[in-house]
Amino acid sequence: MQNFEFYNPTRIIFGKDRLDSIDKYVPADANVLITYGGGSAVKSGLIAKIKIVLGKRKVEEFGGIEPNPHFHTLMKAAEIVKKNKIDFILAVGGGSVIDGTKFICLAAHYEGDPEDLLKMGFRRITSDVVKKVVPFGTVLTLPATGSEMNSGAVISHNDGKYPVMSDLTFPVFSILDPTLSFTLPKIQVANGVVDAFVHTTEQYLTYPVGARLQDRFAEGILQTLIEIGETTVNEPDNYIVRTNLYWSATLALNGLIGAGVPQDWATHMIGHELTFLFGIDHAQTLAIILPALLEVRRKKKHAKLLQYAERVWNITTGTEDEKITKAISQTRGFFESLGIKTRLSEYGVKAEQLDNIVQHLKAHGLTALGEADDHNLETSREILEKAM
Amino acid sequence: MQNFEFYNPTRIIFGKDRLDSIDKYVPADANVLITYGGGSAVKSGLIAKIKIVLGKRKVEEFGGIEPNPHFHTLMKAAEIVKKNKIDFILAVGGGSVIDGTKFICLAAHYEGDPEDLLKMGFRRITSDVVKKVVPFGTVLTLPATGSEMNSGAVISHNDGKYPVMSDLTFPVFSILDPTLSFTLPKIQVANGVVDAFVHTTEQYLTYPVGARLQDRFAEGILQTLIEIGETTVNEPDNYIVRTNLYWSATLALNGLIGAGVPQDWATHMIGHELTFLFGIDHAQTLAIILPALLEVRRKKKHAKLLQYAERVWNITTGTEDEKITKAISQTRGFFESLGIKTRLSEYGVKAEQLDNIVQHLKAHGLTALGEADDHNLETSREILEKAM
Repeated sequence: MQNFEFYNPTRIIFGKDRLDSIDKYVPADANVLITYGGGSAVKSGLIAKIKIVLGKRKVEEFGGIEPNPHFHTLMKAAEIVKKNKIDFILAVGGGSVIDGTKFICLAAHYEGDPEDLLKMGFRRITSDVVKKVVPFGTVLTLPATGSEMNSGAVISHNDGKYPVMSDLTFPVFSILDPTLSFTLPKIQVANGVVDAFVHTTEQYLTYPVGARLQDRFAEGILQTLIEIGETTVNEPDNYIVRTNLYWSATLALNGLIGAGVPQDWATHMIGHELTFLFGIDHAQTLAIILPALLEVRRKKKHAKLLQYAERVWNITTGTEDEKITKAISQTRGFFESLGIKTRLSEYGVKAEQLDNIVQHLKAHGLTALGEADDHNLETSREILEKAM
Repeated sequence: MQNFEFYNPTRIIFGKDRLDSIDKYVPADANVLITYGGGSAVKSGLIAKIKIVLGKRKVEEFGGIEPNPHFHTLMKAAEIVKKNKIDFILAVGGGSVIDGTKFICLAAHYEGDPEDLLKMGFRRITSDVVKKVVPFGTVLTLPATGSEMNSGAVISHNDGKYPVMSDLTFPVFSILDPTLSFTLPKIQVANGVVDAFVHTTEQYLTYPVGARLQDRFAEGILQTLIEIGETTVNEPDNYIVRTNLYWSATLALNGLIGAGVPQDWATHMIGHELTFLFGIDHAQTLAIILPALLEVRRKKKHAKLLQYAERVWNITTGTEDEKITKAISQTRGFFESLGIKTRLSEYGVKAEQLDNIVQHLKAHGLTALGEADDHNLETSREILEKAM
């Protein structure tokens, strides 16, 4: 096991009918900004219910945070925060609204050029850089990204998608009521299953370091997602199954399974370019890239892929390589069983466009990916070719 | 899955050579009290190393916190806190030192009678009750109780052992350097394995509520402890194996596997009386009670015991009852493989003393235990008889 720090102060409030907790955990004298996305939270009456719980607090609203939230949108909200002396933000939505809100909290009182905050890469933004950060809570309506219990965000700007990391942007609390997701379109639920699945594999399918619990926990999340995936897509109001999707998505990216183990975020990095260039849903880009990446990197990842085949997919017969082949194939099959296509060509991407994707990876400095920084542009090209 | 709140703000600093973090996370102007136990942390040079890291901070020491830390001992430390205007405590030791330190932090500035703090049972002590709590960190030298990443404590007083629960007593940070435990006597390591194991079963062996992740995580901890138990007892300086014991013990009782599931702490409750009456080590009382309790309660716990047999012990043949019988037997065998005796008679307890144990349970109000409050004094008597 590698040395690690684990810190996660977000309070999770899980289950049915938990909105009353907002009154408990939002300061009684706060000026509150509610942030949300396309408006389904308004139409469903959720925002109205939340405003009732907020009672006499002064409340502003900022809607329209788009999927892959954009810098310019968020800066408009940051202006509202300053102008209205907002001292608590409540993000109501999925990963995009929550990621966007984290950036608003950092940018509102930042004394420098907010575009600088996009240029930190995976370095953590500290209180030396941003001296005043607005606290926030979340009401999660789409289980997928894990943003409700971590401090990271991905923000879109002119020329790409940028990670923003900071210990200052953990939600104070997150309300996880699975019933709030019952009305989601099937495809968004399927995307959520895939997103959580790939977050887990990116912290698990690397090389062994004797971290037995992290392995067992990752395998537990993967097994759970496999067990419930089709059901939770097809039976949206099956509460008990949906609770397991919610909790899986949160635990897949709250720092726990990644503590003390190598990580490989190449699937996400390549996927971000596909979203940016072709508008493919984030989770769908992961479903396209992961099986191809595992094929291309199967020698490097042999030991963990074998463990994955045996423990997650219960594949007990065949040679080691046969087991791995079968596990990768079943991974692809799992994504497809949820209604998610796993081939670039199925999304209309042509072979002659692969060059451009590789160029974008290069332009964004993504030339040494993987658990050992040995996944170069040629590796990415090979993966893209295999993903066609 | 049941509704739950999960909150755990303790920062874990894990691995070799992490003492430098103390300088980062203890306020630079703090007056520090270092608390410790019998003195091995002094003899090993650990306290001296910590004082070097603390640099120019004013440091007081309070040693001699005993196993099953006692109210009167801790009140002496609370006096030192007040007298020396201590504003940060560093607990160096195992669960007893850390539990004791939590009580010191609560009692030092409590305005009422500190004995009242023992009378809250499992109700959480809030800031309405204790207005000022001293913050503290820990340096863990004995992996067992999980106290390093939770806010609970068990304090001994005249007539028994008392749980003390509060959201105010999470360690600010805990340093988990497995090498600090290399010099422990074998029996203490074995006790640690058993303690972590039983913490896990008490949150797992109840009845199913469809909490798939909590089950998988609990099973992962149990499997890990079974895999590493004998090795970590017999190879004290096997670092990688010991890392897994450390992390297992912490995760067994940091709130995660117990979130949203029923719990049954009867093994601990009966065990506390055995420690109080006969001075049997805490973990040994658990090793005595658990197998007997599982036998007596096997009908109530049937579904989870079967899952335990199949998933944790990989028992695949036989009837359901045969599988459960085998799993309970293997549980006992596991404890014994670590050098821990599992029969009351092996600790010198006589059949005629069982009445007295039951009387103590009654006197402490422990008449409705178990996941459904249906474990009464007769159940406890039956368990004690089976444990002879």
